[in-house]
Amino acid sequence: MSSYKVTYFDITALAEPIRFLLSYLNIDFEDFRFDKEQWPSIKPTMPFGKVPVVEIDGKVLNQSTAICRYLSKKAGLAGSDDWESMLIDIAVDNVHDLRQAIASYKYDPLEESKKTKYEPLIKETIPFYMDKFEKIVGENNGYFVNGKLTWADLFFVAILDYLNFMAEIDLLEGRPNMQALKKKVLAVPQIKTWVEKRPTRNP
Amino acid sequence: MSSYKVTYFDITALAEPIRFLLSYLNIDFEDFRFDKEQWPSIKPTMPFGKVPVVEIDGKVLNQSTAICRYLSKKAGLAGSDDWESMLIDIAVDNVHDLRQAIASYKYDPLEESKKTKYEPLIKETIPFYMDKFEKIVGENNGYFVNGKLTWADLFFVAILDYLNFMAEIDLLEGRPNMQALKKKVLAVPQIKTWVEKRPTRNP
Repeated sequence: MSSYKVTYFDITALAEPIRFLLSYLNIDFEDFRFDKEQWPSIKPTMPFGKVPVVEIDGKVLNQSTAICRYLSKKAGLAGSDDWESMLIDIAVDNVHDLRQAIASYKYDPLEESKKTKYEPLIKETIPFYMDKFEKIVGENNGYFVNGKLTWADLFFVAILDYLNFMAEIDLLEGRPNMQALKKKVLAVPQIKTWVEKRPTRNP
Repeated sequence: MSSYKVTYFDITALAEPIRFLLSYLNIDFEDFRFDKEQWPSIKPTMPFGKVPVVEIDGKVLNQSTAICRYLSKKAGLAGSDDWESMLIDIAVDNVHDLRQAIASYKYDPLEESKKTKYEPLIKETIPFYMDKFEKIVGENNGYFVNGKLTWADLFFVAILDYLNFMAEIDLLEGRPNMQALKKKVLAVPQIKTWVEKRPTRNP
């Protein structure tokens, strides 16, 4: 049996989709979390100076989305043909675009510039993406792609707490289809078990 | 036979990996390019307000990397098993990280902040990534992954002109492995033919 170790800060964010997928697969994994203070000493040991990183059978891998895609194939959540796999990849990358737009506000080092980003983020960018997601999920029987559970759904719900934290609002407010999607994903028994037992520090 | 239409600005950048892959596949495609002035009227018609967009048999798709991955499977450039596919995805996303670091300088709207970004970009970030790529390609028989041509190689070479343009330097200078990789990809007959016939406006 393969061994898995996830290395990340003690938050959900980019590692949580990996943790969701490993949990979905009923794979026992080492959930290694470090404090901010440890980061300077850990950073130089990471393949590209970033985390999350996953060690599979001793091989150290970066790029969380690539790892999620790999795990989702094992889980049967990566689409039933190449076209469907592409639609799932598109959905995931659309969520990443939203994440990066929010992060561009949250992590702007210049207070002045950061302030000017908030209003367009809340009034334009987030509604733009979230309304599209709401519509897409509404048209796809309650899921992102082709009316069935895929890793795009797990990915979004896993990263949602982090998006809400960065945006300082609830992205699902007034969006019943997305609320239902969240509920469904969190009701998957393995995900439910994981969320109940995971460290409570958030997001 | 399927029909393909690529919609993008009249530049290489994010559309060029798609154009490389379509060319590699000997697929005739409509290479629709618009001027900056047309963008405000085109933007609202795009799925997520961004380009490139590819229309395949009338279906309009965004997210260039997802589309590249789909095309690369048709081309036999997406890895021979799930593990290798993941290694290719990781390589592509590492190139994206470098691209985004350079773009964060290039497209910074605040002149003051932009200026402060250039030195660390040129002296730290670019050498960090490019030296790693140089080493990886050196260790993998002249390719990004497992000693053979994959879409990670096509992706990097396709986007290289754009990276150089944004960074205002030649990323391959002093990096012979990466120079050899570029040469090899551009010598692939279908790529050679495409590069010779593509519009010369650059990057």
